[in-house]
Amino acid sequence: MAKKEKSNLLPLRVYSLGGLDEIGKNMTCIEYGDDIIIVDCGLGFPDDEMLGVDLVIPDISYLVENSDKVRGIVLTHGHEDHIGALPYVLKSLRVPVYGTKLTLGIVENKLLEYRFEVQPKLYCVEAGDVIRLGVFTAEFIHVNHSIADACAIAIGTPQGTVLHTGDFKLDLTPIEGDVMDIARLGAIGNEGVRLLMCESTNVERPGYTPSEKNVGRSLGDIFDHNKDKRIVIATFSSNVHRVQQIIDISAQMGRKVAITGRSMQNIVAAAMRLGYMNVPDGVLIDINEIRRFRPENLTLVTTGSQGEPMSALYRMAMSTHDKVELGVKDLVIISAHAIPGNEKLVGKIVNEMFKKGVTVLYDALVEVHVSGHACREELKLMHALTKPEFFMPIHGEYKHLMCHKSLAEEMGMTADRIFVSADIGHVLEITENGARWNGTVTAGKVLVDGYGVGDVGNIVLRDRKHLSEDGLIVCVATVDSRDGYIVAGPDLISRGFVYVRESEGLMEQARRIASDVINDCLDENNHDWNDVKNRVKDQMTRFLSAKTGRKPMILPIIMDV
Amino acid sequence: MAKKEKSNLLPLRVYSLGGLDEIGKNMTCIEYGDDIIIVDCGLGFPDDEMLGVDLVIPDISYLVENSDKVRGIVLTHGHEDHIGALPYVLKSLRVPVYGTKLTLGIVENKLLEYRFEVQPKLYCVEAGDVIRLGVFTAEFIHVNHSIADACAIAIGTPQGTVLHTGDFKLDLTPIEGDVMDIARLGAIGNEGVRLLMCESTNVERPGYTPSEKNVGRSLGDIFDHNKDKRIVIATFSSNVHRVQQIIDISAQMGRKVAITGRSMQNIVAAAMRLGYMNVPDGVLIDINEIRRFRPENLTLVTTGSQGEPMSALYRMAMSTHDKVELGVKDLVIISAHAIPGNEKLVGKIVNEMFKKGVTVLYDALVEVHVSGHACREELKLMHALTKPEFFMPIHGEYKHLMCHKSLAEEMGMTADRIFVSADIGHVLEITENGARWNGTVTAGKVLVDGYGVGDVGNIVLRDRKHLSEDGLIVCVATVDSRDGYIVAGPDLISRGFVYVRESEGLMEQARRIASDVINDCLDENNHDWNDVKNRVKDQMTRFLSAKTGRKPMILPIIMDV
Repeated sequence: MAKKEKSNLLPLRVYSLGGLDEIGKNMTCIEYGDDIIIVDCGLGFPDDEMLGVDLVIPDISYLVENSDKVRGIVLTHGHEDHIGALPYVLKSLRVPVYGTKLTLGIVENKLLEYRFEVQPKLYCVEAGDVIRLGVFTAEFIHVNHSIADACAIAIGTPQGTVLHTGDFKLDLTPIEGDVMDIARLGAIGNEGVRLLMCESTNVERPGYTPSEKNVGRSLGDIFDHNKDKRIVIATFSSNVHRVQQIIDISAQMGRKVAITGRSMQNIVAAAMRLGYMNVPDGVLIDINEIRRFRPENLTLVTTGSQGEPMSALYRMAMSTHDKVELGVKDLVIISAHAIPGNEKLVGKIVNEMFKKGVTVLYDALVEVHVSGHACREELKLMHALTKPEFFMPIHGEYKHLMCHKSLAEEMGMTADRIFVSADIGHVLEITENGARWNGTVTAGKVLVDGYGVGDVGNIVLRDRKHLSEDGLIVCVATVDSRDGYIVAGPDLISRGFVYVRESEGLMEQARRIASDVINDCLDENNHDWNDVKNRVKDQMTRFLSAKTGRKPMILPIIMDV
Repeated sequence: MAKKEKSNLLPLRVYSLGGLDEIGKNMTCIEYGDDIIIVDCGLGFPDDEMLGVDLVIPDISYLVENSDKVRGIVLTHGHEDHIGALPYVLKSLRVPVYGTKLTLGIVENKLLEYRFEVQPKLYCVEAGDVIRLGVFTAEFIHVNHSIADACAIAIGTPQGTVLHTGDFKLDLTPIEGDVMDIARLGAIGNEGVRLLMCESTNVERPGYTPSEKNVGRSLGDIFDHNKDKRIVIATFSSNVHRVQQIIDISAQMGRKVAITGRSMQNIVAAAMRLGYMNVPDGVLIDINEIRRFRPENLTLVTTGSQGEPMSALYRMAMSTHDKVELGVKDLVIISAHAIPGNEKLVGKIVNEMFKKGVTVLYDALVEVHVSGHACREELKLMHALTKPEFFMPIHGEYKHLMCHKSLAEEMGMTADRIFVSADIGHVLEITENGARWNGTVTAGKVLVDGYGVGDVGNIVLRDRKHLSEDGLIVCVATVDSRDGYIVAGPDLISRGFVYVRESEGLMEQARRIASDVINDCLDENNHDWNDVKNRVKDQMTRFLSAKTGRKPMILPIIMDV
């Protein structure tokens, strides 16, 4: 790619506020002069260290400081890891949002649960559209994915085109709509792509991701062989094509279909309203009506494919679903793959269902799920089509990004044209002369816990971890410092440490240690309560650690009357 | 199999104290009249709900109550999930232990860390040996597995033969020693097996498990292509054959080998001493000597293939290993598969090493590991060889046991001859007339936390979970109930709830609520402190839940002076 002529152009700045060295929380920003455009605004799920945390969203301080520059947010598709932070971000950033019809349908549904002073502006686009946002243009390009209406986005900038793939796969036999727009991607490649930002989820997997049609074939066979059973299928609620296939097969077999689980009901309703789903008349019934039909004439489509506690499938497995009781006449299909970290949850409900005599089929046993992400050969195709001058792998842990770098090198790209960063906020600067890392913007993880956004940090998490491992002992005493004696206590209250009834001797010894330390301090006329508390803490910790091999959190409280 | 003649035989009782509907903690008992024989004595790892718990061991109350009947423990092989509970069990059960040389070598090493009033008796056997234990005989039969010296055990009983497979695979090109003793298994099958107890770990996987030799070939290629790098290989310390292959390849390539990680050093030392490993002179060097050699002439073999915090590989990845600093000249191979639940830990160290510029290879990318367990075709072979009258799938979650049942049915076994239970302690009774479930013995999980064995139960775990999710607030007040006023406090101390400095207003409001409740109670002359505390707890919980969406544990403490 020939270098452009020397000119008065400004540098283009590209940085991610999420999605590098992490799964989810995808958010990419492109900045030129006084204009910023944002691609996606996703949430992440807490890792094992983030005890009690519900969600993780990007730190957008930099964007808030520069809110006058932000021209808009363009969305690639409607998955949580690409849109889930919108309700939070739109509170501090009043900018328009652009996305395809189904994507915005899901976003609208989401925003309903939150209150805004000024209602966010959502603008509907379709694949092929080009919009102008400040100095930028954004062209939406149809791709295949595990949700309908997904797009890659080609962003025209004064420094050339940045192509952001979003999440994609190549499905040559898609359920509805077209094959990924290979021709347009190729054309853009021929026009010249300065920077390719390409997702990396499946970069460790060789070959091609199978077509969604394969799942339909498997499901068809399973339905054929189980005409005497009620069939319950759990899948991702946003996988509209999967649900469409289940409905089609059921209709062919003369089964009625009932939908259960709130998010499944919401998305199916939205998809039908927006024309993304085509349900023959009379096939869909309300979950309350299922008693009117013979079990073998029913298909239930449900949430819970990740084993989420309180999801509809979880409640069925644990016998707490008020409409569906599972038994030997049921076949349950888990039409999904466990997201890393959820394997045990899914395993748990599968085991519970087997115990009820249910026949359970899942992806280890039969092809009832395919991924929505490009495997290595599809990633190579994307590289071959777009022929980028520079490449930044995105959406993945660092190992995925590095594997994606190796893939690009295999295709002949030189290492100096590939930019891998483990650090969100790292700014890639692109000028006529080339590209280089140059500086950072504020970036990080904001933890959402209940209604609290950002009020849980490292200290709180460290304490939760300590408490979760060894519990705590509160040691409380009331003293009269003037006369130098203990008025009441010390009393010990423990939680999460030992079963107290069986450890009375141990607790009494610990209490005496605390009592001795406090008395000693009072005798020494030591009224530095912090010092006294530290001494209590140290002595008790030493004693308990030697006796039990554990170090509960010790909370000494001394009240001076 | 023809039914035996009517006789005066007693029923044979077979029950598992672990390994059914769980991974690990394997322990099976066979009882006839006044004789009990135990197969294996393993530990399990805590599940996600068992916060702070170190290990799980079987509840052996039934065996302790019947300790005069227990004739001995026979071990199939030296993995933790088969021998790890021995140090605990042998404290309350003074019985002899029988195992092959390497198995006992590992057991001896383990027992050294514990004190016994009477040193346990260990008896060494070898494959082919038959020992007599009370009314039983136990024949050790060579099988392949990911540890050397593994055996299936055929137990001769007055009610016929019980064949317990232990863990096994069929390796037609094993590294050292023989192929699984197919001939003997077939002969025993021809003589008649009344009950087959067969492991189920890989029953979801089609085909055959590849030979350990495949790993050697892959490693050879990798060494060939990386002659300029220091090579660090992490694997399971007990996989003596894997380590042997690494040493052989290194020796061929002129590399010295250093071992790091305590368990790896222990097991390699034991394996060499017992003749299970064959190391050419001068190849093995001490980890302290590595500075004397050029990096490209070194191979380091290390623990930490599961990403275990504080393992040698973890410390290398986190730059806290005192001997090894990783960098761009290093190639790290993780020659293992992440055990379910460990995926994220392994991913974490892989990411960290990539960040250091290390080249990292792992099983998703190249065949650097094979399983030690039989896949479906090997399981079928075991069934075909042993032709059992009855079958009980063991070693697996319930879904594995049920899949194993389906496999047996595919081979023509009728459902009435297959006994699947999700319940440890469930007794299978075998008589001349057949087999049936009949009764239970005490069974369960005993949690080990630090030095405490069994002192952490459901209440402690429930509290740890509550504390881990929302933290706690201690609310402490000293009152004078006679005169009806608050002497000191109420003070709030919180841990793991919110970042207090940024939530002073919230905490002050909560404090006032507590103060009001206590004052109200004092005004009402209510000295039922439990009632007062419950009111404080309820009011504060309601307030905080509405404000924050969280429910921290509230610990009210009222001291009356």
